[in-house]
Amino acid sequence: MDWSIKSRLFALSLCIVGCTPPQSSQPPIDRQQITQVSILNALMLGHYDGVMPMGEVLEYGDFGLGTCDHLDGELIVLDGKAYQAKADGTVVEVPAAETTPFAVVTFFEKQSKLPCAGIGSLQELEGRLDTASGDENLFVAVRVEATFESITFRSVGRQEPPYQPLVEVAKKQSVWSHEKVKGTLVGIRSPKWVGGLSVAGYHWHFLSDDHKLGGHVLECKIESGAAMYDPCSSWLVKLGESTSWTGTDVGKDLSREIEQVERIREGKK
Amino acid sequence: MDWSIKSRLFALSLCIVGCTPPQSSQPPIDRQQITQVSILNALMLGHYDGVMPMGEVLEYGDFGLGTCDHLDGELIVLDGKAYQAKADGTVVEVPAAETTPFAVVTFFEKQSKLPCAGIGSLQELEGRLDTASGDENLFVAVRVEATFESITFRSVGRQEPPYQPLVEVAKKQSVWSHEKVKGTLVGIRSPKWVGGLSVAGYHWHFLSDDHKLGGHVLECKIESGAAMYDPCSSWLVKLGESTSWTGTDVGKDLSREIEQVERIREGKK
Repeated sequence: MDWSIKSRLFALSLCIVGCTPPQSSQPPIDRQQITQVSILNALMLGHYDGVMPMGEVLEYGDFGLGTCDHLDGELIVLDGKAYQAKADGTVVEVPAAETTPFAVVTFFEKQSKLPCAGIGSLQELEGRLDTASGDENLFVAVRVEATFESITFRSVGRQEPPYQPLVEVAKKQSVWSHEKVKGTLVGIRSPKWVGGLSVAGYHWHFLSDDHKLGGHVLECKIESGAAMYDPCSSWLVKLGESTSWTGTDVGKDLSREIEQVERIREGKK
Repeated sequence: MDWSIKSRLFALSLCIVGCTPPQSSQPPIDRQQITQVSILNALMLGHYDGVMPMGEVLEYGDFGLGTCDHLDGELIVLDGKAYQAKADGTVVEVPAAETTPFAVVTFFEKQSKLPCAGIGSLQELEGRLDTASGDENLFVAVRVEATFESITFRSVGRQEPPYQPLVEVAKKQSVWSHEKVKGTLVGIRSPKWVGGLSVAGYHWHFLSDDHKLGGHVLECKIESGAAMYDPCSSWLVKLGESTSWTGTDVGKDLSREIEQVERIREGKK
């Protein structure tokens, strides 16, 4: 099977094409690798304390999404920098020492491009990407640079212990809609079989070109722009030396709650 | 008790300091990382074509287990070498170019030790390890060097396309029991939340000290010996550039079939 050879080459290739911040004491990271901090179900159940500093997260990728310590806002990683879109509507760069309880990153290297003019919904965008990007068992990073006819996104506010489950917190999320805004969608598509370990399907965060707006995207209409995507052949889950969720049943099916937290788009204006 | 699943295909343990082939062009691998080739449900559904050469697998670890191309036997990785325990009862070293469709490896570094004299069953061994090794959300590599009062293990025979699901193939497995044998159990414990991606709980392969006996362990009684174990803080899943299982629902719940294939111990003598 010649794809076994290809996969070998692919898996091992570190095609460092000139853009990542090298960390002298760290080995190079496989640039085709999706790396995530912790697992989604732990976050769903209220484990919001950060476990990896952002400086370390950025060693694993220059592109991605997640949240911040104490669930303080939506995390957007773009062009090697980490941004925090807070519930008060501000966007700030995240200091290297700030931690995250959940994040998913990779080194974005455009493999293919898809025009996106006139796309009327996230669902339509996702359908086109599914058709274009092939193998549904791979992770795919998607970067959409566009002018949005409209976009609706949300953020969640910093929490304090004892933490409530994310499905409860999300009921009090801040939601904004904007028209005629330029910016970038940072998307990660995970295979269905990730179950409660990550967000199966597409997960979209947004950052405006002026870095003043951002959040977890609930809906959008694209006026003009293009999607670039990058399939990822490896998936690394970082657990740390111990987890805070010992004794918690993080294996249970929370797919309905995840859908509610990540995907509910109706009624948001 | 989902601990009861034992490994199915191979155990490659290569524990050692000083014998793995360094690949000068490759970055160093995180030695606390568990790396697996493909996902278990793909194997369960009959995707038996090898996708990673053993030489590459050994770059990710010197200890572990799995199976070989065409499901040809049980794989044991021990001290940096890969062994294939075939259905005809022979054990051979696996050439570097031979491929595997599913394997789990790490670099074994003893963190702790547990005496194992007089342990009457795998269940008892696993219970003691659970108590000793703490955080159930981490992966743990376990190396048991022992004299076995008795041990029962199996292997599966090489398959040819069109492949049957593993639960069917396992009905024709070869099973052997031996008494008074010295050897090593190569074990990997995965958290419950791995679902159909790997074997949740313990997965055990065996290689005798003389390298003449080996297989997927169904049961054992330990006369004397010790278990050494090594918690792993990261989990890497290698998918390759494309998968052969596009269009197959590898996300479905096959836990009952996995139990049947990996853990059924009764009636085996």
